[in-house]
Amino acid sequence: MSRLIEELRKLPGIGSKSAQRLAFHVLRSSAEDAEALSVAIRELKLHLRLCSICNNITDIDPCGYCASPVRNQRLVCVVEEPTNIGTIEKTRSYHGVYHVLHGTLSPIGGVGPEQLRIANLLTRLAEVDEVILATSPTTEGEATAGYLALELRKMKADVKVTRIATGVPAGSDIEYADEVTMTRAMEGRREF
Amino acid sequence: MSRLIEELRKLPGIGSKSAQRLAFHVLRSSAEDAEALSVAIRELKLHLRLCSICNNITDIDPCGYCASPVRNQRLVCVVEEPTNIGTIEKTRSYHGVYHVLHGTLSPIGGVGPEQLRIANLLTRLAEVDEVILATSPTTEGEATAGYLALELRKMKADVKVTRIATGVPAGSDIEYADEVTMTRAMEGRREF
Repeated sequence: MSRLIEELRKLPGIGSKSAQRLAFHVLRSSAEDAEALSVAIRELKLHLRLCSICNNITDIDPCGYCASPVRNQRLVCVVEEPTNIGTIEKTRSYHGVYHVLHGTLSPIGGVGPEQLRIANLLTRLAEVDEVILATSPTTEGEATAGYLALELRKMKADVKVTRIATGVPAGSDIEYADEVTMTRAMEGRREF
Repeated sequence: MSRLIEELRKLPGIGSKSAQRLAFHVLRSSAEDAEALSVAIRELKLHLRLCSICNNITDIDPCGYCASPVRNQRLVCVVEEPTNIGTIEKTRSYHGVYHVLHGTLSPIGGVGPEQLRIANLLTRLAEVDEVILATSPTTEGEATAGYLALELRKMKADVKVTRIATGVPAGSDIEYADEVTMTRAMEGRREF
């Protein structure tokens, strides 16, 4: 029992109280349920891998997006983490494919270009028309986008490199926009 | 005393407790301070008016922006309220002038085009090259921007009408962007 509590506590957001509660739940559940959970955890690590094309987490390689005949394989959206794909998919308006960096450049955190999955983005570039840099508009996200734009153009001079819009979020009053956001919203204004 | 408390309670955000506290503060302060406050309130209404060109609140007409020789008088940024000018001025990167609507279209709230100060925007259009629609990306703000774009083009076909960017706010993770904001951030992407 204490061994399971110990292991559960390693999970993010699980403190000792939660770990104990979860462990007691397992204790009370049927042997089948406990076995199913155990197997599911093992299987996850056995079967999940990173897509060799886009680095998304997948159980088949290449992943569903990279293998899709209906998605535009010449339009690549670069994101920081696999979870960001969900944020973009929810818009239901993007029909290209993805590339997951698994992080952002962070000189302070010791993350350089070698620690990110950039190499296989450059190698697939011959088959790509546009790369959308959809890293977050944070310091690290902007630095990463700037670095990638340079590298992408170095590799393929005529590739179109775009950046998602920074601006006032939909539904929000401009009264609450900070200076940087407002500056970018004005700079990024578009013909109506 | 109770008359002052009554009057103070009419101010936004001032409840009966606050009104009482403020009234006691006036009671304890010197006769000069009380008189100065009284005069300041009267003067405000006597001397402040709306700029006849841009509808901003001002003590001289035309206002400082409209009279400025260093600002670009041919670039007009349309905002909902006078306070929005402060938000844009804080960016220190906008050097055009303004036009204050004093509200947004709101069919439910009974606010039609006649209730907004649109007429003097249309009449100054001959002297204007670009109109930036900086109403908030809320339902009312978008409706107002859409309406204005049509009216402006009707009045002057070749005027440039632009809309501030909707997108992920600076410094924020795209993980927290809602669907509409993310859709607009993707649509509004710009060449890097």
